[in-house]
Amino acid sequence: MAREDTRKLILDNGAKLVHAKGFVNTGIQEILDAASVPKGSFYFYFKSKEDFGRALVEHYAAFVSAMFDRYLKDASLPPLERLRRFFRGTTKFYKNTGFFSGCPIGNMSQEMSDLSEPIRQKLHEAYSQMKAVIESCIAEAQARGQVDGGFDAGSLATFILNGWEGALIDMKLSRSFEPLVVFTDTVFGRLLKGKEPVKE
Amino acid sequence: MAREDTRKLILDNGAKLVHAKGFVNTGIQEILDAASVPKGSFYFYFKSKEDFGRALVEHYAAFVSAMFDRYLKDASLPPLERLRRFFRGTTKFYKNTGFFSGCPIGNMSQEMSDLSEPIRQKLHEAYSQMKAVIESCIAEAQARGQVDGGFDAGSLATFILNGWEGALIDMKLSRSFEPLVVFTDTVFGRLLKGKEPVKE
Repeated sequence: MAREDTRKLILDNGAKLVHAKGFVNTGIQEILDAASVPKGSFYFYFKSKEDFGRALVEHYAAFVSAMFDRYLKDASLPPLERLRRFFRGTTKFYKNTGFFSGCPIGNMSQEMSDLSEPIRQKLHEAYSQMKAVIESCIAEAQARGQVDGGFDAGSLATFILNGWEGALIDMKLSRSFEPLVVFTDTVFGRLLKGKEPVKE
Repeated sequence: MAREDTRKLILDNGAKLVHAKGFVNTGIQEILDAASVPKGSFYFYFKSKEDFGRALVEHYAAFVSAMFDRYLKDASLPPLERLRRFFRGTTKFYKNTGFFSGCPIGNMSQEMSDLSEPIRQKLHEAYSQMKAVIESCIAEAQARGQVDGGFDAGSLATFILNGWEGALIDMKLSRSFEPLVVFTDTVFGRLLKGKEPVKE
């Protein structure tokens, strides 16, 4: 197998295990077993578990970024409708999969921010990227008069993304999509208001 | 030492370690060392690490509940002012301690909901209690006309508590109180609006 393929195989399997069990709770041997990669290979590709953690954040960030682009940069729809579809689509995904896991970037941020400075820095980059895409949607909605321009788009993006991350924790905790529905209803029914109603 | 004192000593020391490092990442021996309790004592008080985890959630919940009562049930202040002081006071606490750790109930909910059903149930009880106290404040503010009565107080409490938990993760991630300030500004400047301005 080509070098990059083995590295990707380790990351793909590691991503699934860490998303389900947490980073500290997932052993390197367990990842190698799942990937059917011989023992010893890990340190050929990664200097340490921390180094693997940084690569894992990049792996998750690429996934999240592709999903954000698909939903939130679709210029055929008005900006608030893109945002709404993202939250609705994600809610449907969790409904179909039993309200587990949540956001891989949010989970690792909670778990690892205080435990590894290099991993925290990678997570902070990824999270800032997520905020920036939401901020663009809100700024576009403000320019169209669909969201009141009196509030900073960056602050609204921070508030909304953090609210969503919190709602995902509550979803796991309550094994219910109710926190996600409350989130979407409150954001679109109360927070993001403007001159025109949002086109369905 | 009386039996209850030793149990409390294990829980006090465990609470500090788990809050700083996470539940999975904290070993039983490490807690016993910190508590200066002889090896073997742990299983006299707790059947398993999971059983200890349940007791730890009760321990955290008692702490959070006392803090919620102090801030949010102070009848000498109007309800929104109580809520505002709670978020401001907590922000000041994290500013003084370097933006670490966050909410012990929120952290364990993220870490443990998918890993232990008995711990998830205890956390869900504690989180529901926290929501109920916030809901009372909002319902009282609605009755006074300080918050628009058109939205369900329970849903607003869910949205606000989840937003706060998400902001606490972002605080650890960005090593900054900015997410907490954005949260408070948005909740009180945009979300909880009514007929009268909030009395300072």
